[in-house]
Amino acid sequence: MTRESAEELGEDDGGSVVYDLDADCTADDVEQDTPYLAEINGVVDYGVFVDLSESVSGLVHESVLEGTYRVGDELVVELEAVRDNGDIAFEPVDTDEYELESVSHDYSLTGTNRLEANVGEQIHLEGTVIQVKQTGGPTIFHVADEYGVVPCAAFEEAGVRAYPSIEIDDVIRVTGTPEYREGSVQIEVDGLSTLEGEDAEEARERIEEALDTRAEPHEVDPLIDWPAFEKLRPNLREVAKLLRRTVLEGRPIRVRHHADGDGMCAAVPVQIALERFIADVHEDADAPRHLIKRLPAKAPFYEMEDATRDLNFALEDREKHGQQLPLLLMLDNGSTAEDVPAYETLAHYDIPIAVVDHHHPDPEAVEHLLDAHVNPYLHDEDYRITTGMCCVELARMIYPDITDELRHIPAVAGLSDRSKADAMDDYLELAAEEGYDETRLQDVSEALDYAAFWLRYNSGDQLIQDLLQIDNGDDERHRELVSFFADRGREEVDEQLEAAMPHVEHEDLDNGAHLYRIDVENYAHRFTYPAPGKTTGEIHDRKIEETGDPVITVGYGPDFAVLRSDGVRLDIPQMVSELEEEVPGGGVSGGGHLVVGSIKFVKGKREEVIDALVEKMEDAEIDEALSSAAPIDD
Amino acid sequence: MTRESAEELGEDDGGSVVYDLDADCTADDVEQDTPYLAEINGVVDYGVFVDLSESVSGLVHESVLEGTYRVGDELVVELEAVRDNGDIAFEPVDTDEYELESVSHDYSLTGTNRLEANVGEQIHLEGTVIQVKQTGGPTIFHVADEYGVVPCAAFEEAGVRAYPSIEIDDVIRVTGTPEYREGSVQIEVDGLSTLEGEDAEEARERIEEALDTRAEPHEVDPLIDWPAFEKLRPNLREVAKLLRRTVLEGRPIRVRHHADGDGMCAAVPVQIALERFIADVHEDADAPRHLIKRLPAKAPFYEMEDATRDLNFALEDREKHGQQLPLLLMLDNGSTAEDVPAYETLAHYDIPIAVVDHHHPDPEAVEHLLDAHVNPYLHDEDYRITTGMCCVELARMIYPDITDELRHIPAVAGLSDRSKADAMDDYLELAAEEGYDETRLQDVSEALDYAAFWLRYNSGDQLIQDLLQIDNGDDERHRELVSFFADRGREEVDEQLEAAMPHVEHEDLDNGAHLYRIDVENYAHRFTYPAPGKTTGEIHDRKIEETGDPVITVGYGPDFAVLRSDGVRLDIPQMVSELEEEVPGGGVSGGGHLVVGSIKFVKGKREEVIDALVEKMEDAEIDEALSSAAPIDD
Amino acid sequence: MTRESAEELGEDDGGSVVYDLDADCTADDVEQDTPYLAEINGVVDYGVFVDLSESVSGLVHESVLEGTYRVGDELVVELEAVRDNGDIAFEPVDTDEYELESVSHDYSLTGTNRLEANVGEQIHLEGTVIQVKQTGGPTIFHVADEYGVVPCAAFEEAGVRAYPSIEIDDVIRVTGTPEYREGSVQIEVDGLSTLEGEDAEEARERIEEALDTRAEPHEVDPLIDWPAFEKLRPNLREVAKLLRRTVLEGRPIRVRHHADGDGMCAAVPVQIALERFIADVHEDADAPRHLIKRLPAKAPFYEMEDATRDLNFALEDREKHGQQLPLLLMLDNGSTAEDVPAYETLAHYDIPIAVVDHHHPDPEAVEHLLDAHVNPYLHDEDYRITTGMCCVELARMIYPDITDELRHIPAVAGLSDRSKADAMDDYLELAAEEGYDETRLQDVSEALDYAAFWLRYNSGDQLIQDLLQIDNGDDERHRELVSFFADRGREEVDEQLEAAMPHVEHEDLDNGAHLYRIDVENYAHRFTYPAPGKTTGEIHDRKIEETGDPVITVGYGPDFAVLRSDGVRLDIPQMVSELEEEVPGGGVSGGGHLVVGSIKFVKGKREEVIDALVEKMEDAEIDEALSSAAPIDD
Repeated sequence: MTRESAEELGEDDGGSVVYDLDADCTADDVEQDTPYLAEINGVVDYGVFVDLSESVSGLVHESVLEGTYRVGDELVVELEAVRDNGDIAFEPVDTDEYELESVSHDYSLTGTNRLEANVGEQIHLEGTVIQVKQTGGPTIFHVADEYGVVPCAAFEEAGVRAYPSIEIDDVIRVTGTPEYREGSVQIEVDGLSTLEGEDAEEARERIEEALDTRAEPHEVDPLIDWPAFEKLRPNLREVAKLLRRTVLEGRPIRVRHHADGDGMCAAVPVQIALERFIADVHEDADAPRHLIKRLPAKAPFYEMEDATRDLNFALEDREKHGQQLPLLLMLDNGSTAEDVPAYETLAHYDIPIAVVDHHHPDPEAVEHLLDAHVNPYLHDEDYRITTGMCCVELARMIYPDITDELRHIPAVAGLSDRSKADAMDDYLELAAEEGYDETRLQDVSEALDYAAFWLRYNSGDQLIQDLLQIDNGDDERHRELVSFFADRGREEVDEQLEAAMPHVEHEDLDNGAHLYRIDVENYAHRFTYPAPGKTTGEIHDRKIEETGDPVITVGYGPDFAVLRSDGVRLDIPQMVSELEEEVPGGGVSGGGHLVVGSIKFVKGKREEVIDALVEKMEDAEIDEALSSAAPIDD
Repeated sequence: MTRESAEELGEDDGGSVVYDLDADCTADDVEQDTPYLAEINGVVDYGVFVDLSESVSGLVHESVLEGTYRVGDELVVELEAVRDNGDIAFEPVDTDEYELESVSHDYSLTGTNRLEANVGEQIHLEGTVIQVKQTGGPTIFHVADEYGVVPCAAFEEAGVRAYPSIEIDDVIRVTGTPEYREGSVQIEVDGLSTLEGEDAEEARERIEEALDTRAEPHEVDPLIDWPAFEKLRPNLREVAKLLRRTVLEGRPIRVRHHADGDGMCAAVPVQIALERFIADVHEDADAPRHLIKRLPAKAPFYEMEDATRDLNFALEDREKHGQQLPLLLMLDNGSTAEDVPAYETLAHYDIPIAVVDHHHPDPEAVEHLLDAHVNPYLHDEDYRITTGMCCVELARMIYPDITDELRHIPAVAGLSDRSKADAMDDYLELAAEEGYDETRLQDVSEALDYAAFWLRYNSGDQLIQDLLQIDNGDDERHRELVSFFADRGREEVDEQLEAAMPHVEHEDLDNGAHLYRIDVENYAHRFTYPAPGKTTGEIHDRKIEETGDPVITVGYGPDFAVLRSDGVRLDIPQMVSELEEEVPGGGVSGGGHLVVGSIKFVKGKREEVIDALVEKMEDAEIDEALSSAAPIDD
Repeated sequence: MTRESAEELGEDDGGSVVYDLDADCTADDVEQDTPYLAEINGVVDYGVFVDLSESVSGLVHESVLEGTYRVGDELVVELEAVRDNGDIAFEPVDTDEYELESVSHDYSLTGTNRLEANVGEQIHLEGTVIQVKQTGGPTIFHVADEYGVVPCAAFEEAGVRAYPSIEIDDVIRVTGTPEYREGSVQIEVDGLSTLEGEDAEEARERIEEALDTRAEPHEVDPLIDWPAFEKLRPNLREVAKLLRRTVLEGRPIRVRHHADGDGMCAAVPVQIALERFIADVHEDADAPRHLIKRLPAKAPFYEMEDATRDLNFALEDREKHGQQLPLLLMLDNGSTAEDVPAYETLAHYDIPIAVVDHHHPDPEAVEHLLDAHVNPYLHDEDYRITTGMCCVELARMIYPDITDELRHIPAVAGLSDRSKADAMDDYLELAAEEGYDETRLQDVSEALDYAAFWLRYNSGDQLIQDLLQIDNGDDERHRELVSFFADRGREEVDEQLEAAMPHVEHEDLDNGAHLYRIDVENYAHRFTYPAPGKTTGEIHDRKIEETGDPVITVGYGPDFAVLRSDGVRLDIPQMVSELEEEVPGGGVSGGGHLVVGSIKFVKGKREEVIDALVEKMEDAEIDEALSSAAPIDD
C-alpha cells in the first residue's frame, strides 16, 4: 500500500505509524513531515549517513543528534531539506512506539499525451512495442500506449541492441525522461522491462481497449443523401477502423491505386487524412513521412512486379528501421482475379490487405486473401459508385476535419469515370456550392489524367494535390492551372485522333452493331499522350456520337487489344476463356467485364485472335442499357 | 536620439544631462560614468532595487545610500559594477538640476558578413525572408540581407511553425545569437518581427539597392576579340545579373541542357560558377547542393515529361523545405516553338525562365514566356556562336575566378557543334596555349558524346567534369582518359556503320543532289551507341566525303526520320507543314531548320510520308553555301 | 629516454638525477616526488612562476621559497599540487649536485582497439589516412591503424578543410579525445601531424605488417572434400586476402554479379561476410552501408552502361565523401572478352578488379586488366564448379562465423546452373543435413530466378536473403515462401510454353541432330517472365526429353538469337566470327562457348543470318558428351 492510499483510507499517521520505504523507492517517494525508518550506514564527525532505500540516502547532522550511533542501527527520520546539489538532509524523529507501514515505489504512469508537460522529469510509461530501430548509437523502441506513440532511446553500447530480449508486440514498462530531440519528444530510457503475468495481461487489456475505442471511426454524415451508398457504409467504416487501428499500432501503410482520375480522387484524400491522423498519434514529427506512401499502380491490377518491389521495400524497412511490415491498401484497383498472384506473394508475410474498388470484382478469387473489401458490386450496386466517392467518405471517417477540403472531389471522381449515378446531380451541386461548375470539374478530371500520364510511376504528391485543390489556396490560379493542363491534354488527344481517325475501319455486324477497329500501333503515336487505351476510348465516344448505339470499338497493337462496347453485351472474361481454347498457341489472356476489357496474345497470332474475337461479337446480344462509361485502363 | 549620437553631436553630458533608457533598452545600452534615471522597485535591508528599463535592473547598496527611499521614487544612478553572475550594482549620482535625454535601444545591425566574429553574442539583423523550412523541431527562416543569407532557427514547439504570420518576402528584424550548427553559422532566434511602414520601406530599399549592386556581373574581357560575339554580350550580362540576383535572393536554379558536347560545355561551367557564388553568399554550407541542379534534357526541346517532373520536384521542395520555386535555365535548348507547351505549364507558377541557345529560334512563339533570352540568331548571327562559347563568358561574368579553368572549353564546344565561326582559330589557339591541341580537343568532344549516351538521364557530374578537365589536376591522365573514351566511341560508330553502310540506298535527285537513305531500325543496332541521329549524321559525313556536295541523307525508323543536307535548301519546318496537309492521318510533326531536322509520323504511314518527302527534295533549291554542320539531335 | 624507461632500467632518481622536460612535454609527463629543472619566468609578491616545458608552468609560493630570484634563473622543483582549476603549484627541491636527464613527451599510442576504454581522455594514435571527408563543419579523417579504422574530426572553420596538406595514404599522428558521436566512437582532434622520415617509415612498416597479417584469410576446411576444387583454393585465398585487405584499408567494394541463381548464391554470401568484417574493422557504425554495394549486372557481361554509371558513382563518392575509388568484384561474370571495354574504362582510374567466374574465360583478353581472377577453366576444370560453390568458400575465408548459415547454398548454386559436378552428391547431402531436400533446394533456385526477374536492376537485398534463408529464422515460412515463388514461376513458364510450343519448328539436320526453332518475338509474351533466353532453354529441355540427343534449339527475336545444344559441338564464338564475314552489313556479334551462346544482328538481316547459322549447324560435329546444362543468359 502506498502512503497516499494509506492517507486516503483516513488512517492516522501522526506518530503511531512509521513508513518503511521499499528497496526500489526513490527520492520522489519521500514526503515532508513524515517519519521514515532509516538504517545507519556511516558514522562521521559531523553526523551519520542513513539509507531509507536502495537509492534514498542522506545525512543526519550531528547538531540534531543525541547519543551515539553505530553502523547498522535503525533510526526514524524526517526529511529536513534537499540541498541544491541534490544531497538530502534528514532529522531524527522522536518515536516511542510505532507501527511500520511499508511504502511501495509510486510507479504512477504518465501517458504519451502528457509528455511535453513532463520534459526533463523522470516518468513511467507502459505500452506495446511497435518498432525497434537499432541506430549506430542507441536502440529506439517505439512504444504505443492508450494515447499515442513515442520513441524511447535506450543506450547499451555504440550500435549494440539494448534489451535484446524485448521484441515487437511486447508490453513493457519504461522508466525514463522525456526530452526534445531534434524538436520531437523522445524518452531517454533509464530502465525498461517486460511486464509479466497479470501485470502484462492487465496492461495489454487496458491498451487494447483504449486502442479499440480510439480506432473507432468518427461518425460523419455522408456529404449527400444516397440510399445506394448506404449499403456500403458499414463496410467503409470497417476499413476506416482498420486503418485507424493500423496507425495506432504504428504499422506503415502502403497505398497502391489506379493511376487515373477516380483513382487519384480516392487515394489522395485518404493519404492526407491518414497523414494528419499519424501526426496526431505519433510524437515523432517524421512519422507521417515514414509511415505512409502512396504509389500509382503500373497496371490496372496489382502486378507481380509491383508486389515484388513493395515486398522488398517492406523487408528493407523492417531490417533497417525495425518497422513492422505494412498494410497494403488497394484503391480503385484490387478486386479481381488478376490481383491474386500478387496477393498470394504477400500472404507469406504479415501484410494485411484492404481493398476499396468499384471494378467488377471476383470475390471468390480474392476474398480469402483480403482483410477488408469494399466494392459496390458486392451489394448489388455497380461502378457508378466510384472509388473516389467512397474514399472521400472514408477519409472523413478517418479524419473529419478534412471535410471542407473535399466537397468537390466526389464530383471530379464521378466525371472522371463518367459515372451515371443518380447521385451525380447532388455531387455536382455540392461542388458548385464550392465554386466548381461542371467545366472546372471536367478540367480537373482531364488535368489529372494528363498529369498522371507524364508523371508515370511517380506519385507526384504536390502537383496532384495542386490539381485536386486539396489543402490549397488560390482559387483563380487553380482555375487557370487545371484549364491549362486540361486544354493541353485535349489538344494532344485531338492530334492523336487526327492521325488515327482516317484509319478506323468500319464493319456492320450481323447483330446490327457497328464495329470499329483501329490499329493503334501503326496509326497512333506511340509513347505519348493519350496511350492506346484512352485513344481507343476517345474514338469509341466519337463514333457513338456519329452513329448512335450499338457500337463496339477495338483498338489493337501488336500483342494486345482493348475493347469498348455500348449497347452490346460482350462478356469479355467469357470471350477470353473461349479464345484461350480456340486459338492454341495464341497465349490469350485478359480481363474486364461485360462492356470494357483488354486482351493479350502473342504477336504472331494477332490476326487469328482478332478474327475469332470479331466472330464472337457478331453473335453478341444487343442490350441498349449497357454502356462502357468508365475509361479503359491503358 | 541615442546617447552615442548625442555624443557625436558634441553635447555636454557632464552633469546637466541625465539619460532615460527606453523600455526596450538592454544592459548593452548602459555605459560607464553616465547618469541614468532609475525607479526604485524594492527596498530591502541592504539597499534598494532599481529599474532603468524593462530588462535593466540592479541593486544600490545601502552603504552608498543616504536617507530613506520608497518604492516608486526616482533616483539618478551610475553603473558601479557588473558581477560575475550578471547582477548589476549601481551607485547614486548627485544631481541638482538636469535635463533628461531619452536613450533608445541600440539596434545597430550586424550584417551576415560579420556573423562569425559575433558567434555567441546576441546581435540584430534585418533582411528579407527567402525560405521558411519547418523542421521536426524549430522553424528555419533563411534571411537575406545586403551581404548574404543566413538560416535563423526559431523554436515554438516541436514541429510547430514559429511566427506563423511571417512569410517569404517579408522584411524582418531578427534578434538572436549566431552559433555554429553542424559547422555552419546559424542564428538562434530570440525574437523576430516584421518591419512595418517606413522602417520596412527603408530596409527594403536598402537591401534592394545592395542586392542590385551585388547582382551586377563582373566586368570581364572576353577570352578572345570577336566582333560578332559583342552583339550578344549585353544580353549575356543581363542573364548573368538575373542569375546572380537569383542566388542572392535564395531562389533555387534548375538547369536543363541539351545532352550533347556543346550543351555540356555550356551547362557545366555555369553550374560550377553558380555553385561557387552560392557558397560565397550562403552561410549554410549545404546551400550549393540544395540550390542548383543540372539535368540533361531527354529531347532536343523541353518536353512535357521533363516539365511535369521539374514542376513536381519544385512543388515538393517548396512543401518540404519551404524553398521558393526555382528559376529554370535552359541551355543549348529552349528557343523553339516546341518548348512552348512546357513553358506554358510553368507559367502558371512563379518560375522565371532564362534561355541561352544557338538553335534556330522562334522568338514569336517563346519570347513572351521568357524572362531572358540569348540567341545569336536574334542578332543576325547564327549557330556558329555556340552555346558553350556564350556560357563560358556567362560563367566568367558570374564568377570570374573560374576563368583559368575554362580557356579550353569554347574550342571543345565549337568542335562539338562543328562551328565554322571565324573565331574558332582564336579559340583553338587559346586552347593550345593550355596544352590542348586539336586532337585532344576532338577527343574531349567525342568522349563527352559517348559518356553522355551511357549516362542517359543522369547528369554524371563528376565524370563529365573529369572529361571536361574543369577543377581537375592530372593532365596526363586526362589525355589518356578522353582518348580512351573517344576511341571507344569511334569504334562503336565504326561497328554501327559497318552494319549500316551496305544498306544505304542511293538516288540521284532531279535537282542534281545525291539522296542517301538508311533504314536505321532494320540496318543499325538499336539501343546502343551511336543512336539513330548520330548514325545518320556519320553516314551523311562519309557520303559527302565520297561524293561531294550536294548531298541529302535521310535516316528513318518505324515512325521517325532524321534529315541532313549539305548544299540543298530543305526548309524542314515548311516541309513538315506541307506534309501535315498532304498526308491525312499521317500524324506528321517535326522540327528543325533549313538543313537539319527530324520528322515524326505514325508507323503505318511511313512509306507514304517518306515518298512525299523525297518528292519535295527533288524540287529543293541547290545552295552550296548551306551546310548541316551541327549534329542532329537524336 | 623517457622517465619510465629510465626507471625500468633501475636507475636511481633519488637526488642525483634531475629531469629536464622536453619542450613538447605536457602535464601528463610530470610525475610526483620527482625533481624537475624549471626556469623562472616571473617574479611576484607571492612567489615565482616557473616553466618546465612549453606547456607546463606553475607557481612556487613565496612561503616555501628562500632568497631572491630573478627571471631566467634555474630552479629544481617538485610537483606540490594540481589545483581544481588546473593551476599547478611546485615546491623547490634541495639539490647540490645532480645529473640532468631529459624526458621526452610520452607519445605512447592508443590503438583503435582501445578507444572505448579511453572515451573522454586525450590519446595519441598513429595510422594511415584512408578517407578525408569535408563536412559542412569539421573535416573527418578516417584513420586506419593496426587494429581498425576510426573517424577523426578536425575543425578549422565551418566547412573549411582542416590540415589541407594531409592526404589519403599519409601516415599521421593524431592527438585527440575519443568521444561518442551518434553512438559511434570518433576522435575529436586536438592536433594532427604527418609523420616524417624514419618515424613515418617505421610506422608505415608496422601498420603494413599488421594489415598484412590481419588481411590473411582464415584457414577453413572446405565444406566437402573435393579434389577438383582444391586446384582453385589458392586463388580463392588470394581473393579473400585482397578483399580483407581492401576492407582494412577502407576502400569501398562494388560487387557486380550475374542476375541468376548461381550469381546470387555467389554474391550474397560474400556481401554478408564482407559487411560483417567491415563492421568489425570500423568504429563507424554506418561503414558497412557505405563501403559495400551489391548490384545485379544488366547483361551477362559488364556493359559499358553499367561501367559508366559505376564510375560516375565512384567519382561522386570520392568528391562528396572523400572516399577512395572502389574495388570492383565481378562474380559469376567477368571472365570474357566482352568485359574488356568496361574494364579498360576503369583502368584509367585507381579501381582494382577481381573476378570469380565459371563461364568460359578469355584469359588473354582480360588477364592483364585484372588484379585477381578465379575461374575453374584456368585449372582445366569447368563450369561444373559453379561460382556459388566457390564464393561460399570465399565468404568463409573472409568471415568464418558465417559458415553455419551457408551449408545449403552450394547445392542451390549447383542446381541453379544444373551442375553435373561429382561433388553435387556431397553438397546435396550437406544441405539435407540442414533440412533441405532436393525439392526445397530446387524451389529456392526457381524462386531466385523468378524474384530476380521482377526485381530487375534492384538488388533486392532483403527479399533475396529471405529466399536464400541466410541470416534468417523461420524454417516453415521459408519452405512456404520459396515453394510459392517457385510454383508461381513454373506456372508462368508453363503459360509461356503453352503459347510457344505449337510454333516450334522442327528440322532434321544432315548430321542427324534435331533442330528446333522458335520465334520468341512473335510466339512468346514479351516483357514478362520467362524472358527469351529462359523460354528457349525450357523448350530445349522439353525437346531433349521428347526426342533425346542430339538437339539444337534456336530462339530468335528481331535482332538476336539464343542457342542451346546438347550433343552437338557448335563452337559459337567461331560461328560468330565466320558470320561476321559471311553476312556483310549483318552487324553480327555475340558470345558464348561450345554449346550455349547468343548472337546479335541487325533486324533487316535476320533471315540471312539465321539461314547461314543453320547451315553451319548441319556440318557441326556430333559429340554426345556435350551438354548445355547451364542456363542461357537472357
